[in-house]
Formats: sequence, C-alpha cells, structure tokens
Amino acid sequence: MTHDLTLILGGARSGKSAFAEAEVTSHPGPWHYMATAQAFDDEMRERIAQHRRDRADGWVTHEVPLGLTGALHDVPAAVPVLVDCLTLWLTNQILAETDLHTEIAALERALRARRGPVWLVANEVGLGIVPENTLARRFRDEAGRLNQRIGQIATRVRFIAAGLPLALKG
Amino acid sequence: MTHDLTLILGGARSGKSAFAEAEVTSHPGPWHYMATAQAFDDEMRERIAQHRRDRADGWVTHEVPLGLTGALHDVPAAVPVLVDCLTLWLTNQILAETDLHTEIAALERALRARRGPVWLVANEVGLGIVPENTLARRFRDEAGRLNQRIGQIATRVRFIAAGLPLALKG
Amino acid sequence: MTHDLTLILGGARSGKSAFAEAEVTSHPGPWHYMATAQAFDDEMRERIAQHRRDRADGWVTHEVPLGLTGALHDVPAAVPVLVDCLTLWLTNQILAETDLHTEIAALERALRARRGPVWLVANEVGLGIVPENTLARRFRDEAGRLNQRIGQIATRVRFIAAGLPLALKG
Repeated sequence: MTHDLTLILGGARSGKSAFAEAEVTSHPGPWHYMATAQAFDDEMRERIAQHRRDRADGWVTHEVPLGLTGALHDVPAAVPVLVDCLTLWLTNQILAETDLHTEIAALERALRARRGPVWLVANEVGLGIVPENTLARRFRDEAGRLNQRIGQIATRVRFIAAGLPLALKG
Repeated sequence: MTHDLTLILGGARSGKSAFAEAEVTSHPGPWHYMATAQAFDDEMRERIAQHRRDRADGWVTHEVPLGLTGALHDVPAAVPVLVDCLTLWLTNQILAETDLHTEIAALERALRARRGPVWLVANEVGLGIVPENTLARRFRDEAGRLNQRIGQIATRVRFIAAGLPLALKG
Repeated sequence: MTHDLTLILGGARSGKSAFAEAEVTSHPGPWHYMATAQAFDDEMRERIAQHRRDRADGWVTHEVPLGLTGALHDVPAAVPVLVDCLTLWLTNQILAETDLHTEIAALERALRARRGPVWLVANEVGLGIVPENTLARRFRDEAGRLNQRIGQIATRVRFIAAGLPLALKG
C-alpha cells in the first residue's frame, strides 16, 4: 500500500477540486498538478488556461490527458502530487481505445511507487438513472470499477458534497 | 454567519423534505413554509394544493417561486422558516433569466440577517452521467455551486438517503 | 421491526454487491441468494450464469424476478438471505404492471417475518439530473420511495461508494 494516497470523490461542482487543493497546499510546496483535461476547442483551451492562472504560485502543472502514469514516475519522488481528475483520464483512455486493463494496472503501480503524498480527484457518476446511451453505460461502469480499485489501495477516501467531506476511509 | 442555518441535501424522493419538516416542527410554531414550486399546469397546481393540505396545522405557506429573498425579509425575524426547495428556486431564476450573481448574493444576505432558525432543502444533482443537454449541464453546474455557497454559510449540513441523515457539518 | 435487516444502498458499480456478499458470508452458511435480474436475451443469461459461477460454494440461488416475497416465506426461517437487488425487483414489478402498493406491503411483511438476517442491495438513482423520459421519472420516484420504506424498517443501512461504507443507520 502506498504511504499516503487520498481519493477525493464527488459529483459535478461538488467542490472536490477546491477541497483537494486546500489539502495539498497545507503541505510544503512546490506542488505538482497533473491535469488530465483535454482541450478539444478554443473554449476548453481558455478554461484550462484560466484554471491554471487561478492556482496559487508554487504549482507545477503537467498536462497529462493520457500520460499520467509516466509523469507520476518522472516527478521527484517526495513532492506532493494532485491528479485532477482520474475520471477524465479514464475517459481519455476509453476514447483513445487503449487497453484499460494494462493502463490501470500501470497506474496502480506508479501510485504505489511514490514516496510523497498523492491526491486523486474522481467523479462519482453512478447515482443517477441508467443512461440510455451504450457508451455512457460502459463509461459509468468503468468509472465505478476504477473508483473501487483506487479506494482499495488508498489510505484515505473522502466523499464531497456542497464542499464538505464525509470520511469513507482513513 | 447566521445563527442557525441548516442545509438538507439529497436526491429525488430521498426523504429530505420529510426529514426537514420533522426538524422544523420540533421547534415551537407557527412555522413558515417558503414553497418555490411553480404551477405551470393543473396537475402541478393540484400537487401543490395536496402538499399544502398534507402539512400539519401551524404552517404558514408563502408561494415564492422567485420572491424568496423578499419573503425572508418580510416574515417575523424569530420564526422558524423552511425553504423547499432551493434548487427549484434556482431553476426558476434561470428560466426567468434574472442575474444569478445578484440574486444569490441577495439571498445570502437575507439568510444571514435572520435571527430565527432556517432550513433549506436542496437537490444534489451532480452524481450521474454528464447530461447531453446544454441547459441541463448549466443547471447542474449552477446547482452545485449554489449548494457549495450555502454549505459554507450553513451551521449544519445533512445529506439524506433513504430518509436517513449523514452529517456533513455541525 | 425485523430482528436483523440491512439495506445496502449505492450507485452503479459502487461495490455494493461485493460489500453485501462479504457481510453475509461472515455468517455460517448455507446462504440464500435471491437474484432478481431477468434474462431477456442470451447476453444477460450468460452474465447471470457467470455471476452464479463466481459466487463461492455454499450459496443457494433463487431466481425471483417477481416472486421474491414468496421465496422469503419459503426458505428456512433462520438462514442468512441476500436480495440482489431490490431496485431490479421494483423495475420488474413496474414492467409487469402489478399493483405496487400491494406488492411492497407484502414484501415488508415477509421481511419482518424472517428470523434470520437479511441483506437487501438497492440502487440510489435520484442523484442525477431529472430524466426527460416519463417512465424513468416514475421509476426514479418509486425507487426512492421504496428505499425510504425499507430504510425505516431496517436495523442497519449503509451507503457504499468506491467499495467503502458510510453508516446511515445502526
């Protein structure tokens, strides 16, 4: 089990990212930010740039829509790392038609190998009505399974609603 | 921070309104009910009337699909108030194309200004798959943001499932 | 109130079934499994068969898409029973156009009558955006109401996310 791995689960606009950032920055910096959002258009590029400007000084940002696992190996072993978010990373893997089994196993190894603390932000997407769209159903299933796997190796798990945490673990 | 402000979060048919009503009526009445549902048709008008008949004696009902903030200023400052629900009020503001920023700031001021206890019932709507519909996505984002803001000024926050509460705050 | 009734609530792929199975098998077997999934096609038949093979020895499986209540009366009164899941049973009742009021009252009586411990797995489906589809809205409402009713008679209620439990009751 990794030393210090926190999974921050929550819905859309639940305040999970802000909650995670506050926890990370309570540690001494610099903090490494693993951004998994992918800019498909100008609007998205602008939102990503804005989010980057909004973060306080002291953050080092890595754009890793697919290359998250490699980046976790590459950054200094003891620095605090925030991954935002795991669910977008999974979406990117599904759209890129990579082998999920292999990718997830490699991600788990990279997480376990880190010495410094890691926070993973993830969406809980399975609490609505069954989606009619087949791809949405598959994505929902894969996201739930991945949250369970990370929940197992995490030392702490929080569920966020209205910006406030419930402790699922640790 | 207001004296005594409770946010009751939950999904559809989670029992959040009944939970809130039970808390309110544990205080001495009369209790003021701020109803934000809007009757667009006869069926809805009948459901609202039925809900009104179902409430015990001792409730004073205010129909405030848009005028919630004014009503919070107008009712006696020390009486217990239940707002059901915040998410419908937000929907009504979005459909009426009012300035959300202004409306929400005014609502917060009205809540902070009250001396008596206030309960706000709200829907958590961000825990399903991303909606395909643009308006639904915007609504989901605004509802999540509003829940975070109210969560910040609330003294107590509860998440309800199957009629039972989890304490997020207080 | 029944002696020992646990409601396990959670989203899709939240790990609720695995959590429930682990609790059940911590009791001495044999354990009775009430499967409510209905095989409409070969793929579904194969998934059900696979799930059956995956369960450890010691399980006795009953296929009860509609006949759950009768089976609860028929199996020996003291054996541990797992119902997976209540929400599919409700879906089957809605599709079969039975009288829900009567069916749910009979189910409650059967649950209260059991001497041995019972686990009910159920989906929380009300935490997304309001579905556009009328049938989906009705299903969502009925599922929420049923969860509330079972939550009331249960001695323990757990909400599962990422395979981990939050205690709503007991």
